[in-house]
Amino acid sequence: MIKINENYLKLQASYLFADIARKVTTFQEANPEKDVIKLGIGDVTRSLPPACIAALHAAVDEMAADSTFKGYGPEQGYPFLREAIAKHDFQARGADIHPDEIFISDGSKCDTGNIQEIFALDAKIAIPDPVYPVYLDTNVMAGRTGGFNAGRYDGIVYLNSTAENDFIPALPSEPVDLIYLCFPNNPTGATISHAQLAQWVTYAREHKALILYDAAYEAFIRDESLPRSIYEIEGAHEVAIEFRSFSKTAGFTGTRCAFTVVPKACRAFDEMGGSQALHPLWNRRHSTKFNGVSYPVQKAAAAVYSEEGQVQVKGLVEYYLNNAALIRKEIKALGFECVGGENSPYIWIDGRKDSWSFFDQLLNEAGVVCTPGAGFGACGEGFIRISAFNSKENVQAAMERIKSAIG
Amino acid sequence: MIKINENYLKLQASYLFADIARKVTTFQEANPEKDVIKLGIGDVTRSLPPACIAALHAAVDEMAADSTFKGYGPEQGYPFLREAIAKHDFQARGADIHPDEIFISDGSKCDTGNIQEIFALDAKIAIPDPVYPVYLDTNVMAGRTGGFNAGRYDGIVYLNSTAENDFIPALPSEPVDLIYLCFPNNPTGATISHAQLAQWVTYAREHKALILYDAAYEAFIRDESLPRSIYEIEGAHEVAIEFRSFSKTAGFTGTRCAFTVVPKACRAFDEMGGSQALHPLWNRRHSTKFNGVSYPVQKAAAAVYSEEGQVQVKGLVEYYLNNAALIRKEIKALGFECVGGENSPYIWIDGRKDSWSFFDQLLNEAGVVCTPGAGFGACGEGFIRISAFNSKENVQAAMERIKSAIG
Repeated sequence: MIKINENYLKLQASYLFADIARKVTTFQEANPEKDVIKLGIGDVTRSLPPACIAALHAAVDEMAADSTFKGYGPEQGYPFLREAIAKHDFQARGADIHPDEIFISDGSKCDTGNIQEIFALDAKIAIPDPVYPVYLDTNVMAGRTGGFNAGRYDGIVYLNSTAENDFIPALPSEPVDLIYLCFPNNPTGATISHAQLAQWVTYAREHKALILYDAAYEAFIRDESLPRSIYEIEGAHEVAIEFRSFSKTAGFTGTRCAFTVVPKACRAFDEMGGSQALHPLWNRRHSTKFNGVSYPVQKAAAAVYSEEGQVQVKGLVEYYLNNAALIRKEIKALGFECVGGENSPYIWIDGRKDSWSFFDQLLNEAGVVCTPGAGFGACGEGFIRISAFNSKENVQAAMERIKSAIG
Repeated sequence: MIKINENYLKLQASYLFADIARKVTTFQEANPEKDVIKLGIGDVTRSLPPACIAALHAAVDEMAADSTFKGYGPEQGYPFLREAIAKHDFQARGADIHPDEIFISDGSKCDTGNIQEIFALDAKIAIPDPVYPVYLDTNVMAGRTGGFNAGRYDGIVYLNSTAENDFIPALPSEPVDLIYLCFPNNPTGATISHAQLAQWVTYAREHKALILYDAAYEAFIRDESLPRSIYEIEGAHEVAIEFRSFSKTAGFTGTRCAFTVVPKACRAFDEMGGSQALHPLWNRRHSTKFNGVSYPVQKAAAAVYSEEGQVQVKGLVEYYLNNAALIRKEIKALGFECVGGENSPYIWIDGRKDSWSFFDQLLNEAGVVCTPGAGFGACGEGFIRISAFNSKENVQAAMERIKSAIG
């Protein structure tokens, strides 16, 4: 008799963004005359940079002739892309990361979800609260948690991120093995300083723990004193894996390209306590279960690092950051407390009521979709996340509507 | 202390195709003046169909303007593609599969590797021998096997496919829960008849087992009496998940698009013996760990179903089948026994010596790369696989070289 993975039965309801989509669909069906402004899911809205478009067309033309056609590429990605990333994103900032430590993938969602496979099932997991739900859900599916009780899964060490600690969690008070961190944070928009991040690296080194560092939003950092990569912290390459994405940097949410950095010095341990390099393990996982990113997409990602690509991408990020500044200003003017929106596309707002009620109010009264904070964890209750990913005009209109509805 | 998933330490050496690539690189470095003809990995060599190229360019243009730009799409794929697949690949052949039972992905390697996650860890697995290594390796990684002893993993039920049974394995003599089947088979090229496949469906229904049916090579079936989908067998929709790919059908190995069919009626069981639908489980897995296929790539895949796309794809398949017929003829003329190459792009050859020796001989003496049968399982020892995926000229040249070297 074929049995299911019963861990799936522990999962709470369905995936956050699917729930939101359903509510929006219901609203739109009931109110076909109203247009809804979506500041929820955090999906970019502006077209791809012209450098990427040109690279896509050129690569498609290569696929049109036998002599230049590309079949299977290296599972880990083409050297032209891995080299550009190592040089621009890491070496240029003093982080000694090499091309063969970079694994190209089709999304950070996939990578942050799949990475747990290479670790022991009894690993003690520390996960920020609130945070992007994929870290937690994928560990539930794998069986690293108990049941869901009083709003939380048994067996997980939650790293509370609240107004009291300025949304930067304290080091865990009990021993943990695997630590998820996400900065600039999704959903709070909080950023971590060099000194704060160094504390986590020191903790990992002292406790033989490993940090999974999600830096999908690093492109939004404008404060030059903040680290963009965990590898800017000394010693991190032995205790940290980093996730990056072109989704928010260059508008690739519908184009799909991301990468994961597993330094060759990065280690975990076997049952005997022996040190085991993680690079060959992830390489095995990646090459056994993945077949590389679409060639034209990799060419488009590489174009991000061209001279014109860098200018265009900076312009895109600036555009969304200007939206974020406007949202921040208007929300504060309405008397709400908020964080984020400065080195991040997200603004995290204390709604002074439960998250889904505030979500419903904004949807029904203002026709604006946000993301209920409770969807990101127990500490997110009472908050909503507003995303700066939309046109300037839509963001302005949304703010006017919100002011009218709840001002 | 962060510990690794020790199951990875059970894996034998590295992934087959990586081993081959290393041998070829070594040969090429030692013999820079010799050109190598690759009939190994089974990678297509002809350019994308013009209908797909046109669709890609048009979709890239959509990504270039804010008004037509596409961000995140549905994780399961766009309706335009799911509907085309359901209509052309299934309903047109009398298989009652609906668009929402089709999950678009970036590769059958990923899907056949990931599907095991939704099943219990103690599921008893039956895997053909020889077969595409991903089924076995991903179950080793998940911990469903014991160690590797005398050429095989403990705990797996191997379905021997040999000359004695015409490369169609017999039903298992001990109870199994999860059965991998692959027809037209990779690597043997063997095909299964309607009556033979019906026996497996009956077995699964009687034993509450589930069949994972890899039909990545169905486009090569020319014999109209053979089933192209397991859903052509009555009752299969309750006991089978099917995997399909555009890789070999339309030359998408470097473009990346595939799909998995999970009928809503398909079920497994919980610990209490209650029936559990697999569709919501896979949907949860897919939407939590995957973010959809690149939009231009989905448009290209949909173009396969256009009138001109169908003609072009048929031409591509015909081209490779003509290569296969030539290989088959020449290999037989040399006095070797072989199967496949008729409704399949693969020819499975009894080399009358150990697989890697024959591989080395063909590489070193003929400059032709094949795939050693032993890499596909113990029953593959003594065989090699030759792939028809190359230009007609290269296939002709490779056959001439092989004749000179070993004729």
